[in-house]
Amino acid sequence: MIIVGELINASRKAISQAIKDNDIDYIRKVAKEQQKAGADYIDVNAGIFVGKESDYLKWLVQGIQSELDVPCCIDSPDPKAIEAALAVHKGSSMINSISLEKERYEAILPIIAGTDLKVVALCMDSDGMPETADERLRIADKLVNGLLQHNILIDNIYIDPLVQPIGTNDTFGFEFLDSIQAITTRFKGIHTMCGLSNISFGLPARKFINQTFAIMAICKGLDGLIVNPLDKAMMAGLITAETLAGRDEFCMNYLQAYRNSKIDLSTP
Amino acid sequence: MIIVGELINASRKAISQAIKDNDIDYIRKVAKEQQKAGADYIDVNAGIFVGKESDYLKWLVQGIQSELDVPCCIDSPDPKAIEAALAVHKGSSMINSISLEKERYEAILPIIAGTDLKVVALCMDSDGMPETADERLRIADKLVNGLLQHNILIDNIYIDPLVQPIGTNDTFGFEFLDSIQAITTRFKGIHTMCGLSNISFGLPARKFINQTFAIMAICKGLDGLIVNPLDKAMMAGLITAETLAGRDEFCMNYLQAYRNSKIDLSTP
Repeated sequence: MIIVGELINASRKAISQAIKDNDIDYIRKVAKEQQKAGADYIDVNAGIFVGKESDYLKWLVQGIQSELDVPCCIDSPDPKAIEAALAVHKGSSMINSISLEKERYEAILPIIAGTDLKVVALCMDSDGMPETADERLRIADKLVNGLLQHNILIDNIYIDPLVQPIGTNDTFGFEFLDSIQAITTRFKGIHTMCGLSNISFGLPARKFINQTFAIMAICKGLDGLIVNPLDKAMMAGLITAETLAGRDEFCMNYLQAYRNSKIDLSTP
Repeated sequence: MIIVGELINASRKAISQAIKDNDIDYIRKVAKEQQKAGADYIDVNAGIFVGKESDYLKWLVQGIQSELDVPCCIDSPDPKAIEAALAVHKGSSMINSISLEKERYEAILPIIAGTDLKVVALCMDSDGMPETADERLRIADKLVNGLLQHNILIDNIYIDPLVQPIGTNDTFGFEFLDSIQAITTRFKGIHTMCGLSNISFGLPARKFINQTFAIMAICKGLDGLIVNPLDKAMMAGLITAETLAGRDEFCMNYLQAYRNSKIDLSTP
């Protein structure tokens, strides 16, 4: 599966401070740690800096890639910021995200059409956020067809069905999980990707809920995750769930992770 | 979901010693701890004592139920031992298990026909152990039809699809998981039940694998587990997975478990 390291997000205080201080060494350190812990992409998000998002995203991408051979996931709803970051990005990037919201869809589609960029496609339209598996599938259907018609390969599409908190509605967990299965069954070769910490919003012991939910989502077919790769228990759960889901020939990844002390034995 | 506490099994040294020593206080202590930790049934197994299994099962059931108001799960392939234990059992028991192996099927069916006993039906026939989801579904189909024809309610049937180790074949995890979904989809109102520690046979960090697999099985519809209820991390995973699977109205079970310190916070 694909792991996107989520830590370089300006909504985190240490990151916004590093951006303000022009402290690229700290940014590189966080990128490096995430890559070492298993991140395939480094998410970069400077959304809190209105008016400066484009400049800061460029600075983040250039600063990270000048030292590390790792692709970035450009995390912004703003087409101008995405284009600015893409202009300096080396290698093939991931865009997070397009959605079916009219304005966003029409602005971002021309940027990605016909490219080999990977794209996260968020199950959201102008009517708001979906609640059921059926609503997610309906939006995914339109998104996938639109992207395919604009010469984006199915292998480059990552549908994000949009996690909503079970503290708000106790059906929100399985409706999301069922949508993963429905989407991956409907569109052969497609991928799914999400951040999942929203599932536990308002409940205690959030990390434990998030970890359990990640395992369940993998069981339903999820193959991409925006996550903190430094969370050892989470990463151990992901590796083990992939092995149990039959995506680990001869259990080699699991055994290697165990030998490298990545399977957290403090979890009894 | 239904939790069957697995600890009173004579294959465990402390239990076989207690049986030999006629130490019913120790047996009661283990039963009590399991009930307190969430066991709905107390498994009793004296299979290692050839020729004495019937007597020992009776002794276990009477000893436990003379002090605790809890049903036992009578864990034996031997119809004589099952009948002996049933004769002294108070309230409605669970029988573990019938299978499609010819001799076992024909001997155990008359004991359970027309009763309100809960019965674990193991997906195994005279040809041996199934490997794929399809093979499991084929055996389950025959078992369920046979049981229904003998006036056993579907609500009292617990299909055990039979866990096999992923260390032997890396498809054994998802084939089992898919069979849970296939069986619960095919037979509305049926239950599934298994012990799952066999999944990790031959691999390191077995408890972590078992816990992850239990969460995945619940995600696929499993609603019964033969397990050590004193394993806090396992139980926390089960409670949380049930909540995320939409089987916990307003997340009340989760919140209560958290307040009762059952959600293991040592798992970050």
